[in-house]
Amino acid sequence: MKHALEMARLTIGQTHPNPSVGAIVVKNGRVVGVGTHMKPGEPHAEVFALQQAGDEAKDADIYVTLEPCAHYGKTPPCAKAIIDAGIKKVFVATLDPNPKVAGRGVQWLRDEGIDVEVGLHEEDAIEINKDFMHFMRNKRPYVTIKTAVSLDGKMTANSGDSKWITGEAARRDVHENRHRHDAILVGIETVKHDDPQLTTRLPHGGINPIRIILDTHLSIPFHAKILTDQAVRTIIICGNHASESTEKQLNEIEHIDVLRMPTDEIDLNDLLAQLAEDKIMSVYVEGGSKVHSSFIHKQLFDELHVYMAPKLIGGPSSKPFFNQNGFTEVSQSVKLTFESIEQMDDDLKIIAKPKR
Amino acid sequence: MKHALEMARLTIGQTHPNPSVGAIVVKNGRVVGVGTHMKPGEPHAEVFALQQAGDEAKDADIYVTLEPCAHYGKTPPCAKAIIDAGIKKVFVATLDPNPKVAGRGVQWLRDEGIDVEVGLHEEDAIEINKDFMHFMRNKRPYVTIKTAVSLDGKMTANSGDSKWITGEAARRDVHENRHRHDAILVGIETVKHDDPQLTTRLPHGGINPIRIILDTHLSIPFHAKILTDQAVRTIIICGNHASESTEKQLNEIEHIDVLRMPTDEIDLNDLLAQLAEDKIMSVYVEGGSKVHSSFIHKQLFDELHVYMAPKLIGGPSSKPFFNQNGFTEVSQSVKLTFESIEQMDDDLKIIAKPKR
Repeated sequence: MKHALEMARLTIGQTHPNPSVGAIVVKNGRVVGVGTHMKPGEPHAEVFALQQAGDEAKDADIYVTLEPCAHYGKTPPCAKAIIDAGIKKVFVATLDPNPKVAGRGVQWLRDEGIDVEVGLHEEDAIEINKDFMHFMRNKRPYVTIKTAVSLDGKMTANSGDSKWITGEAARRDVHENRHRHDAILVGIETVKHDDPQLTTRLPHGGINPIRIILDTHLSIPFHAKILTDQAVRTIIICGNHASESTEKQLNEIEHIDVLRMPTDEIDLNDLLAQLAEDKIMSVYVEGGSKVHSSFIHKQLFDELHVYMAPKLIGGPSSKPFFNQNGFTEVSQSVKLTFESIEQMDDDLKIIAKPKR
Repeated sequence: MKHALEMARLTIGQTHPNPSVGAIVVKNGRVVGVGTHMKPGEPHAEVFALQQAGDEAKDADIYVTLEPCAHYGKTPPCAKAIIDAGIKKVFVATLDPNPKVAGRGVQWLRDEGIDVEVGLHEEDAIEINKDFMHFMRNKRPYVTIKTAVSLDGKMTANSGDSKWITGEAARRDVHENRHRHDAILVGIETVKHDDPQLTTRLPHGGINPIRIILDTHLSIPFHAKILTDQAVRTIIICGNHASESTEKQLNEIEHIDVLRMPTDEIDLNDLLAQLAEDKIMSVYVEGGSKVHSSFIHKQLFDELHVYMAPKLIGGPSSKPFFNQNGFTEVSQSVKLTFESIEQMDDDLKIIAKPKR
């Protein structure tokens, strides 16, 4: 199962809206077939593995990182393929929370007299598809807040300058994360201040996430790179009072969609529900300070990535990543758990999650 | 030598103004004597170890974590004791930077025909006495800045409340550090706001550091615990314009000394020079924000301990630990190196040093 998980891990970020899945067919202690789901529309992991195994699949075991599907989607159900191949025993790391599957795959196999064991390395399997799992269970995208700060918690120096707080390795890791997320989200202030591209720029390429801009009053400048570069679908979120003519103009740009919220201010709960409708399962929130503060204050995040540089910036006008609102007493603060701390060249990457 | 270092480590904080030293006498592969220096006035490590070895010291080897002294102080020189005992070979982890020793101990031994090897586990030996080494070399105390913050870099919530950002394990570690330092330093705002005791409170006791209060205008309230508790010598630092009658009143309190600086504002460089005159070799700077900011901005610190809690506090009135001054551009920031990151219950302890 460890090898199957390793194979699933390779495709994190490229199977949307499907989960990343790996499968291995083993007969008499010998691997006879391996398979990984590569992208939507293509066969699932089990099918590849069974194809490779061919006749050897008869009476063999299959290890699969996610419950085989039981429904006809873009491809026929994998449970059926496993039955047809004559597999004797199925090891499943974790059940598929997709309501179309959710135990039905395992049930079908058992009904056919196949021995099924669920839960082998389940934690790892859930972690690989945490976005997909979270989305299927909560009908809301998995939200990761990312920030880069100095050891004293500043995103910028007094002048607003933020170049470069963290080093090369941390910045590269950010691009890895863009590749892994369905969408990237920033506020209009970040667009105006930095005019960013918000694309994935890795040495070997990578998938660009959908770009989401929070722009309540539709004040985005028409020369902004994200409007002119046509790199990837870009959704601009505005409040109900935003100019309709600007909306029309923006919608005319090839890759731009304006999403008008029913309220004057953007309600983040509403927004996440809307993005879920659009099958956006994971959102990478890159700032700025105001956007981070809103997500944190409403506790609408599942993971927090803090890249921390060995620098002290200080100063009354420098920007911390959580500045608005805030709490009167320490006891009211948002409680987290440190999940991991990793050194990235000179910097640290701290991953924290809300304490449940 | 590793065992000798371990023995030296046991006494960190209790040998002031002497360094922590361990010694082991070995004859034919058998340990025949061990010794550790316990406190000033008592024999040095080598003497204890040689006493225990007795006649067995003849033609034996001795491992000592710091160069044996060559001068008559409160006790006779250890180099002489080693010569008199008939030791054949001496292993020294590192030379003593004290100008009274500084190679003379080793020279004396060699002049007597004893084989001396210097540098075994030298890094560890220097780390154990980093305060002493730094003091002897620079004539300035080793300064450690300590702060406890949330993950977003706040020392307090909006109301000024700071209880409790970090947990039990981190707070206990702070008391371990108070025990290890000659002096603790805070600003008058901390005294007024928290009325702290600034003593070492460990389950098994511990040594109280000298308390140093930066109080430019001598505005300390006479009911402050540090004035009334008589727990340990307390030095109040004031500027040249502070009231002379208040100074007189304070000086009349048993354990209180007022140190008047020659300038209106307290110059930290001057202050550290004065403390060095007073044989204070290590200072633990506990805050508040203004005091930390001054030490950081002047780069007058050798180590920074950040206890970081998995909490997000936010808010415009909450206090970061480095708030005053600060830098206009990121490139001007104070550069550090992360030395270690340790999990302490739910919190992190990050140790950073200025990048040299």
